[in-house]
Amino acid sequence: MATVKVAIAGASGETGRSIVNALLESSMAKFEIVNLTRPASLDKPINAEMKSRGVTIAPAELTGPQDKLIKLLSGIDVVISTILVTDRDDETRLATAAKLAGVKRFVPCAFATVAPPRGVMKLRELKEDTLDHILKIRLPYTFIDVGWWYQITLPRLPSGRIDYAIVVTPATQNLGLDGNVPNAHTDVRDIGRYVARIIADERTLNKKVFVHNEVLTHNQVYDVLERLSGEKLERNYLSEQEVTARIRKSEAVLSQNPEDIGAAMERSIYEYLLSWGIRGDNVPEYAQYLGYLDGKELYPDFEFVKFESFVKDVLDGKGKGVYR
Amino acid sequence: MATVKVAIAGASGETGRSIVNALLESSMAKFEIVNLTRPASLDKPINAEMKSRGVTIAPAELTGPQDKLIKLLSGIDVVISTILVTDRDDETRLATAAKLAGVKRFVPCAFATVAPPRGVMKLRELKEDTLDHILKIRLPYTFIDVGWWYQITLPRLPSGRIDYAIVVTPATQNLGLDGNVPNAHTDVRDIGRYVARIIADERTLNKKVFVHNEVLTHNQVYDVLERLSGEKLERNYLSEQEVTARIRKSEAVLSQNPEDIGAAMERSIYEYLLSWGIRGDNVPEYAQYLGYLDGKELYPDFEFVKFESFVKDVLDGKGKGVYR
Repeated sequence: MATVKVAIAGASGETGRSIVNALLESSMAKFEIVNLTRPASLDKPINAEMKSRGVTIAPAELTGPQDKLIKLLSGIDVVISTILVTDRDDETRLATAAKLAGVKRFVPCAFATVAPPRGVMKLRELKEDTLDHILKIRLPYTFIDVGWWYQITLPRLPSGRIDYAIVVTPATQNLGLDGNVPNAHTDVRDIGRYVARIIADERTLNKKVFVHNEVLTHNQVYDVLERLSGEKLERNYLSEQEVTARIRKSEAVLSQNPEDIGAAMERSIYEYLLSWGIRGDNVPEYAQYLGYLDGKELYPDFEFVKFESFVKDVLDGKGKGVYR
Repeated sequence: MATVKVAIAGASGETGRSIVNALLESSMAKFEIVNLTRPASLDKPINAEMKSRGVTIAPAELTGPQDKLIKLLSGIDVVISTILVTDRDDETRLATAAKLAGVKRFVPCAFATVAPPRGVMKLRELKEDTLDHILKIRLPYTFIDVGWWYQITLPRLPSGRIDYAIVVTPATQNLGLDGNVPNAHTDVRDIGRYVARIIADERTLNKKVFVHNEVLTHNQVYDVLERLSGEKLERNYLSEQEVTARIRKSEAVLSQNPEDIGAAMERSIYEYLLSWGIRGDNVPEYAQYLGYLDGKELYPDFEFVKFESFVKDVLDGKGKGVYR
């Protein structure tokens, strides 16, 4: 079995951890993993845990001297970034160093829903800016989008019994339009397993790839949760005008104070809702139109977590929340 | 044979005329052509000439009411824009109207060299902005790039005998680096014939396509001209630093006076030289990396004008200059 050397930046985040777990368990190839860690984060427990599982922990200062970064990446086959979009300059520097180090494939931090490159979501625009930089420097790449996570799609139940495992946002507590807009969902735990397939696959080199588990409307998400929980959910529908007005409101706050993180998050989540819940961007058909390869066609045998099974686990107290 | 209704905006330009000529002569399909003409340009001789050849001349105010434009485009299969990038807002309006009219394919004004989407050429960035708009509104499209024209690649001969047919610019009178950077060339008269193939081809729907006749280094262009003319050419090589400095100089002028057309053209031509003459962007390999389909693979039987044959015609006084 081939050995593939993978360096990952952002390994402590939700997507990063999913990827590290999957690469360690993968049968697609033998992956040797280097976790590019900020020197200040070297002593965090997650690094000790990863080290105990065979991950090399490498202090990497992405804002530091380029030659040190190039040296660190020499001999690395694949660099994966799950760096937050707010640290996009770091990601650009990482990409440039990867090019100079001769890295064979760079996976930038897309890992989001399918959306138009520009004009709808600020987050998406920043990710496309990174892709444009990659294309300019001719770095071999794969751009992977993954849909909307199961872990952030469930609304609160009146009983509060799933509060331990969900994320309450305007995008879980409201439905776009009539709630019947299809939206591709993925379990965050499957993302790494998709990535393990993709980075060991020559067909995906210099391509965009879209993977997802199941396409569900927001009403279907609510229906499944109602049926399996026996509880009744209120459904609050938002029109395009209402969602757009809320985005504008957040933008007005941000124009006064660009550091207002609450307003930035609110704008972001409403832009997501506009894109997947109203425009219906996050579906395989639109991904295909945008030029993505389709994970269902690439990996028809891929066994993914079913949405119902995820919901049952959450109701049984066996769920695990994200961002906590 | 299928009848394909094509509306074209910008038909009086070099690329537009090449396309109209080719569609009228094509055996790929029966093309019915509508020339979308500014009302102020209705009486221009070129419109009388096109009308005599069976083209419908339709007054179209792209800045006018959208419903009139939608009505004009109803029933049209393909809309082709060769609108100048300086009129990009017009092109965006045309694209939106085409979407609302149910047009089956929109061909925006790419028709240039292969280059990174952003970060090297301002002209390219504006064309990519149009593509982003198309993708946002989910308009079926084909994005066609064509390389560098034979008609704008020849330098002056000392005798001045080909001055009647050439365009003298810093990109013809200077060679990038050592002059050995490959650059894909096309005869402007072949562009329309490629377009006729592409718009009648389902494989190219929602794709980027790159067509070209021959890849030649700038030295090879000079060599052919020297050999066929018997004259000796001076070769003035420019480094990346020199070309970049000239771009910066034009930008400095433009920052003082954004209306300075000379500076804008100079910036544009040096950016082209940087891209194809120094970076070597305008080649099939980079097009493939950027996701373009390759015209040589799509149409292996396509008979194009050879560069030597073009040069011979120019030397024999049978050439025809562009932009005049």
